[in-house]
This record gives sequence, structure tokens and C-alpha cells, in this order.
Amino acid sequence: MTEFVPPGTRYIDLPSPFPMRRGGELRGARMAYETWGTLSPSRDNALLIVTGLSPDAHAAANEGNPAPGWWEPMVGPGKPIDTRRWYVICVNSLGSCKGSTGPASIKPGTHEPYRLDFPQLSIEDGAEAAVHVVRALGVDQLACLVGNSMGGMTALAMLVRHPGIARTHVNISGAAKALPFSIAIRSLQREAIRLDPNWNEGRYEEDSYPESGMRMARKLGVITYRSALEWDGRFGRVRLDSDRADEEPFGLEFEVESYLEAHARRFVRRFDPNCYLYLSRSMDWFDLGDYCLEHGIDREADTRAGLASIKVEKALVLGAETDILFPLQQQREIAEGLRAGGAEAIFVPMPSPQGHDAFLVDFERFGPAVADFLSTL
Amino acid sequence: MTEFVPPGTRYIDLPSPFPMRRGGELRGARMAYETWGTLSPSRDNALLIVTGLSPDAHAAANEGNPAPGWWEPMVGPGKPIDTRRWYVICVNSLGSCKGSTGPASIKPGTHEPYRLDFPQLSIEDGAEAAVHVVRALGVDQLACLVGNSMGGMTALAMLVRHPGIARTHVNISGAAKALPFSIAIRSLQREAIRLDPNWNEGRYEEDSYPESGMRMARKLGVITYRSALEWDGRFGRVRLDSDRADEEPFGLEFEVESYLEAHARRFVRRFDPNCYLYLSRSMDWFDLGDYCLEHGIDREADTRAGLASIKVEKALVLGAETDILFPLQQQREIAEGLRAGGAEAIFVPMPSPQGHDAFLVDFERFGPAVADFLSTL
Repeated sequence: MTEFVPPGTRYIDLPSPFPMRRGGELRGARMAYETWGTLSPSRDNALLIVTGLSPDAHAAANEGNPAPGWWEPMVGPGKPIDTRRWYVICVNSLGSCKGSTGPASIKPGTHEPYRLDFPQLSIEDGAEAAVHVVRALGVDQLACLVGNSMGGMTALAMLVRHPGIARTHVNISGAAKALPFSIAIRSLQREAIRLDPNWNEGRYEEDSYPESGMRMARKLGVITYRSALEWDGRFGRVRLDSDRADEEPFGLEFEVESYLEAHARRFVRRFDPNCYLYLSRSMDWFDLGDYCLEHGIDREADTRAGLASIKVEKALVLGAETDILFPLQQQREIAEGLRAGGAEAIFVPMPSPQGHDAFLVDFERFGPAVADFLSTL
Repeated sequence: MTEFVPPGTRYIDLPSPFPMRRGGELRGARMAYETWGTLSPSRDNALLIVTGLSPDAHAAANEGNPAPGWWEPMVGPGKPIDTRRWYVICVNSLGSCKGSTGPASIKPGTHEPYRLDFPQLSIEDGAEAAVHVVRALGVDQLACLVGNSMGGMTALAMLVRHPGIARTHVNISGAAKALPFSIAIRSLQREAIRLDPNWNEGRYEEDSYPESGMRMARKLGVITYRSALEWDGRFGRVRLDSDRADEEPFGLEFEVESYLEAHARRFVRRFDPNCYLYLSRSMDWFDLGDYCLEHGIDREADTRAGLASIKVEKALVLGAETDILFPLQQQREIAEGLRAGGAEAIFVPMPSPQGHDAFLVDFERFGPAVADFLSTL
């Protein structure tokens, strides 16, 4: 599955064995990462980015890979995350197929991918693996920990499990736990993949990739990543030109359908279906309140108590008003919880029309907000 | 496909041939309907209900069928639509599989269902067929025309094409045109059915019903019919008891997943997939502004002008604030458009948490609103 990994990706071995939270362990596992800028002699300028479900570690162009990254307008010299000042690290999530060990990686002692033999993956496992990368790069405390979407969950798990790992925190379109609407959407995406006969309980090959299941999952993703408001203005009821219209019965007819199709085509075969299933489910399982269970503080998961147990000096929490997958109330909850824990936490709801994906496109709003926050550090 | 039709259903033949708006015609077609109450000697107390995608004509218990109907708390003696006063008619939509002629009906001259040989179906065809039923029952003018969801589209098409067909109008969670978010959702539902190998371009049989496609389509429907807000309160992050949990990899684990599964089970095999595809697409195509094109008023569809061309005395427009499929702005647009046409139109946004389905469950809010309106007639 090396075709998924961008050139210039670097690796750090995880401890072997690497125990997994829900049972089992990994042997010979590693994390893919990239960096930008230079670690200061006092090692106090490190900023880690933990990502959403699908991105690789290539957030922006760097010496190892001059191609633009998935967050190019945000990371670089003079950009909101200014690499002249910050030593920026971005990791590919544990369980992904873009360099870090996951279900598509070769299972030690075999010549086959793990597939469904990969142990159950939780957000907390990704957090532990990211903390290991930080330490291995010689950083005791991050100046700032930035998490987007699923990465917002990972960041909170890092903070709750490793007090002092970061001095400040930026949480963008994240959540302290999965809500049932989001669980329902992700469950349906997984069902689409599982129903594809090619999935075959994870035993697909290159020539039997479960393309239609992944296409459905991605389309449903794109629908919930954006917003109805944006699409009203962007697509309206515009039809495809007759030469682009689909001859199949009930085929594509409207621009919005063609947009979904194009998105699905770009995604399918560039992401491993088993990795998708594992990462998707890890989000459903996530509740920061599990901290209370694990520490015997309470018999029930208490998300608020989990948040309030986090100690950071300052935090910036951003979200889009039109986000239906990680709705704004969840970012408000994070800000309030961090404040209850003593942080100076700023909550900035963005009127972006682009929904959950706003942080990947609405740089006019998200850029200055992040830049302003970092300039106060 | 007679198993879909409730007992006590009555029928009215459509003119033969019955021309279809987008081309082709039906021969020997008929409409299924039920009635409640008695038509007054002056024939001025008729109230017609046109429905959403899936309901049959059995809105409530009556002499022909004492079983509760899909809108039982709304229709009956002393209920909001009081059958002691009103002669209530409910039609099954043209193109459905619950009695009215549709793709699952036998194609004349053959022993086979129409399947994809059924002509393209538009909301306007359903409107023409419903008008025919009204006339055939001896009613020149309805005292009130009530349309829910897709039926809200059908009702508007009836009113624009047949001035005077109704004196007043109740539009519930309806829309004057399909917006791109809703088109995207429905397109994905149709794709799920089309991707099911059993669909086989519509040539399935009883023992090769495209069950997994219909299950996916229904689950996506249920997700968009309800709201995140309702589910937070109703399901939270509650897990299934271990004896109900699913042993399959990535199987059901949360209550919300089990809820979707139960809904899908109740729907699958009780609705014909081809009928679903036809009705679903008819909604995407709908724009009341096409009236302007057809009448040479404008070169582009002008939804507002279409609404303002409708002449009714009074209208009540209801919607749920949490509806993501037919969002509240669409009901506001209907009320404003009808008002521009001279109607005394009341717009009542409901704070119901149940989303698009609120009119089927939140009778405490929708019941009194409808009853109050009808009491002013």
C-alpha cells in the first residue's frame, strides 16, 4: 500500500510491543511524520498537528516534498502557522494507510496485510503514538498542540492522558465525544463498505477493491462535511450540460451530483477500506469522559469532567456554525470544559458556509484566528 | 405487488390515455384513495390530503379499514382534521406501489410490471392525477388542500395548474423546489439501490429483491428525516446490551445503530424499489417556477413567481426548525410567496426536535396548529 504515502515522509518506530487500549498489541509499528522549521535550542517552539480521518502527514510543502500539502495556506513561512517561528510536526494517524502502521500494513511474521487482524483501534491509541513521536523528536512539551476534526479528539486524548504535553491548544472543529447523529452517519458509511461484495470481510486485493462501497461512503462523507447553505449558493438547481449527463437510468443530472461523483473518484483507490473502517469506528468510540472511568473518578463517562481535568495555559477553540457532523455545540463544550480546568480558552464560532470542511477551505476566517492566537504565545 | 395495498382501498380510473408531463402516457391507470366523513349537499366541505413518498391512502381508521392509519391522531371525529365536519379524501400518490398505478403495476398488454418502462414521473403528474380524483368524487373546489413533505410539492403543483381547485391550503414541511442538499441525499439513496446487484436495472423478482440497497436508502432517509438534537436526547451514547450486540465485524454496537436497523427492516420488502426511484427523482425535478417556463412568463424557472401566481384565500404553512431535508427557509418561502399572491398566509415554525418527520410524531404541536386554522374556515 506504499502508493498512498507521499514522498519525503519520515518514520519513527513505536515501542515494540505497543499495547493497544482495547486489547492486543502491535509489534514493529511505526509512525509517519513530516516537519517544517527548526527546533529551537531550548526546544520550546514545537507545534504538533494531528489530523482528520483521511489526511497524510504532508500538511504543506517542505524540503522533502515541495508539492502543496492539504493545509498549504496555513503552514509555512509567514503563514498563520509560521514555520520561521515554529518547529511544526504533523503525524499521519496510527491506523491510517499513509505511512503509519495500520490495517493495510504487513502483519509481522507474514507476507499479508493485517486486514481485520489489526487490533481494535481507539482514538487514545493514536494519541499515545503521537505522544511517542513528540518525545522521540526531543520535545518534552509542545508549545502548541493543534487538532482538526478527528485530530481534535486525538489532541484532547493526548492532553488528558499526558498532563503537560502541551502548553497551549488549538482545537478546530473537534469534539470531546461522538454524538449519535455522527455515529449514525459513520455507521452507514461503514455499512456501505461492508455491503460491497468485494470487501469480503476485509480480504480484497488490488483487483477486487470494494470501489462501490467506498464511493458511497465518500459521497455520504462529502454531504456531511459541507453544508446545505453553501450548496444552495454554489450549485442551486443547475443541470449538467447534455454532453456530461449520464445515460444510465437514474444517472447523474444535476451539478451537485457530478460534484459528489468527482469527489468520490478522487478518494476511491487512494484510501484503504479497512483503514477507513478502523479509523471511522475509533471516532464513534471516543468519549473523553472515559478518563473518569479509567481513573476511578466516576462510574459513568463524564465528558465535562474529562475536559476540566486538562491543564493547558491557553486554548483557542474554533468551529463552523454550519457543521452538522461536529456541530458547534461540541466546540462550545470543549471551550467551556477547558475553561473549567483553568485555561484561558477562547471560543470562536465561524459563520463559514462550508460546514465541517470550513477549516480546509475558509482560510480567510480560520487563518487570521489561528495566527492571532499564536501571536499571543 | 398487491401485498403493499391496505384493505378497504378504493380506486378511481384515470382518463386513458393519461398523458405524462415529460413524455409518454399511461393506459388503464388508476388512483387508490380512501375517504372519511360525508360530502355535504353543497359539496363545500371536501379536504384532500396528499402525502409524502411512502404513505398509502390509509391516513386513519375508517369503515373500510379499522386499523390505525399513518396520520391517525390527526384525522377522525373530534381530531384536528375533524371528520364530523370535513369530507376527507386521501390519495396514494401516482407512481407509488400502494394501490395507485406505478412502476410495480402490470404494464397493459403484458403480464409483467412496468419496471423501468414506466414513463418518467414528475410531481406535476401526481398533481394531475389527484385533481382527477377530486373531480371524480364530485368536488369542484376543495375547502382545503393539505400536503405534507412531497405532498407539499404536489399540492403546490395542483394549485398552480388548477386555479380554484382549493379555497384554502395547509402546507406542512413542504417545498416549492428541491435544493441541492436534498437532491444529493436522494441521489445517494437511489445510487444505493442501483448499486445493489439484485436491482438489475429494475428486473428483480420477489426472491431477488434488492434488500441491501433499500436498507441503505431507508437508513439514510431516517437519518435525514430526524434531527441530531432529538437523537442526542434520545440515544446519547447508549450501547446495546451484550445479548443484542452484533457479532459481525464492525457490526451494530450503539442504540442509534439498532434504531436505524429496525426502521430499515420495517421498510424493506414493504416498498417497491423501482417505485422508490421514480418518486424520489420526481422530487429532485420539482421546481414550481417551471410554471413560468410553461406559460412563457420567463425564460428561467422563477419559484417565487410560481408561488405568487397561486390564488387561495387562506393558507397555513408549517415546518420544523430542525428539518434538514425540507429546511424551514423553504416553508417561509412558500408563505411569503402565497402572501405575494394575495393569500392570508400564516407561517408557523415549530420548535419540534424531530426534524422533517415532526408532523408524523409531534402531534402536540402540529395538531392544534392545524385544528386552529381549520376552525377559522
